[in-house]
Amino acid sequence: MKAIITGAAGFVGRQLTQQLLMNGSNELTLLDNSFPENYLNGTPRVAVITGQLQDSDTRRQLLDRDFNTIFHLAAVPGGAAEADPALSRLVNLDATLAMMEEAAAAAKCPRIVYTSTIAVLGAPMPAQVDDLSPIVPAMTYGAHKAMIELALADMTRRGLVDSVSVRLPGIVARPAAASGMKSAFMSNVFHALRAGREFVSPVSPRATMWLMSVTQCATNLIHSSGIDSNTLPASKVVTLPVIRCTMAELVAVIATETNQSPDLVSYQADADLEEHFGTQPPITTAAAEQAGFRNDGSLAELVRRALAVL
Amino acid sequence: MKAIITGAAGFVGRQLTQQLLMNGSNELTLLDNSFPENYLNGTPRVAVITGQLQDSDTRRQLLDRDFNTIFHLAAVPGGAAEADPALSRLVNLDATLAMMEEAAAAAKCPRIVYTSTIAVLGAPMPAQVDDLSPIVPAMTYGAHKAMIELALADMTRRGLVDSVSVRLPGIVARPAAASGMKSAFMSNVFHALRAGREFVSPVSPRATMWLMSVTQCATNLIHSSGIDSNTLPASKVVTLPVIRCTMAELVAVIATETNQSPDLVSYQADADLEEHFGTQPPITTAAAEQAGFRNDGSLAELVRRALAVL
Repeated sequence: MKAIITGAAGFVGRQLTQQLLMNGSNELTLLDNSFPENYLNGTPRVAVITGQLQDSDTRRQLLDRDFNTIFHLAAVPGGAAEADPALSRLVNLDATLAMMEEAAAAAKCPRIVYTSTIAVLGAPMPAQVDDLSPIVPAMTYGAHKAMIELALADMTRRGLVDSVSVRLPGIVARPAAASGMKSAFMSNVFHALRAGREFVSPVSPRATMWLMSVTQCATNLIHSSGIDSNTLPASKVVTLPVIRCTMAELVAVIATETNQSPDLVSYQADADLEEHFGTQPPITTAAAEQAGFRNDGSLAELVRRALAVL
Repeated sequence: MKAIITGAAGFVGRQLTQQLLMNGSNELTLLDNSFPENYLNGTPRVAVITGQLQDSDTRRQLLDRDFNTIFHLAAVPGGAAEADPALSRLVNLDATLAMMEEAAAAAKCPRIVYTSTIAVLGAPMPAQVDDLSPIVPAMTYGAHKAMIELALADMTRRGLVDSVSVRLPGIVARPAAASGMKSAFMSNVFHALRAGREFVSPVSPRATMWLMSVTQCATNLIHSSGIDSNTLPASKVVTLPVIRCTMAELVAVIATETNQSPDLVSYQADADLEEHFGTQPPITTAAAEQAGFRNDGSLAELVRRALAVL
């Protein structure tokens, strides 16, 4: 495929790039605000563009490339969007809509893989989540993601693009640096335990979370690029299959895999984080499973994969 | 209240204006693309502004008025939006978002009454509709309305505005002139029967519809302006209670009320119209009823009210 990846220097973007480059027939154009120096310099079949999604010249340069697929990962993340809703509107809504319409004009019905989020489901969530659960985002990030889901489904219905919106759960384990994500603790606990450091969990041991390794996430995104979107619901949205676990279960498995004591972790639950990220109920994801999307198989496998790319 | 009404010269806007003027303490600012000559000229407590919602100077003039409430009725209707999605984006999405943000800056947490639509539910609808039914719009009009519902709920959560989004069913009986609405047949059958003219229904006698008189609609919009939005679901959306009837039932009641023969109506169902407007399933509207919204009480009363303002 000839793919554009926005947000390509991010945590998911780098893993996705890596997996796509394993297939020698893929050609990639990578966009992000900045890249590490000499990033993929000289790699055949890769072009790197540095610029902002909200800059129309950057988008023109990007969409002038030959492409049939866009992986749209670039976004102002949840915590940052909540702190600066105007920036979220600019990037997550306006620039994203502009890029989708420009992409439709530049290529014949391109496949758009859009990384949406379980944040569209709101917080607290209903007692059981499935493909028909109501969309009641409780953060600006989720509201803008839900709006784009609707816009893409409508553009797909009109034959302008061929979209698959993929709602991501907590993807672990992100780099320890500040990422503007309120859910950073899910990743930071990996870093702390592997380093044998103490960690104060901001959610209780009983907090329940939906998780996926970044490896599995990239695999699912690549799967999205190849499926027949007619087999998807009319919304063209799938909520990905997840591993659901408690914080205590996660800590226990990371401790086992890293040969550390789970007692390194103590708990001081923050009410807001507990509500937004620690009350994720049982979930069924029939539409995604039918379309061939997969979770990590087990919590142990998820943790091993997360540690492998830490 | 000090209210702005956008789309004030439209069918619902005029009825709403009329009902609001019955209360001598209301002050109104009316906006529309055009008004009849001398419209409400000299009426105390009424200001009339002619201009387009997508014109930022017009919006500035509008929001410079003293107001605490906005009834946002202005929209490119369904059929017109489907024919010109770019215009729908300009008016129903971009200009509406701009106005909401400008209104939040101009007044302290104004009440926004937003007329959304049952078109957000898509077509065909599920076998039974309730307040938790999925949002899968099958027309650009419904997609843009659903996107604004999400944006307003988020702005309300952040304390910028205090919104109530009201999903309107088929409102009858609109003027016979072309209105860009695909559901125009629901109104045109009133005009034909009252005039003793033959009418070819583009949906079958068994087609089921959700209806409300324009009188009841305006009453519900005024009710929206006064309720405590904390009593509403987090979505700040209500789907209004409706009268559900078949086309044959509607024809029979109009015929009775107008002393005409129901045989003036013949049936040539159009598959697209039947799917979009003639398959409306049983519906419960608990959130709206709990918040004090009402339907017309009976089909006969609905028809009498519709004929009274024809």
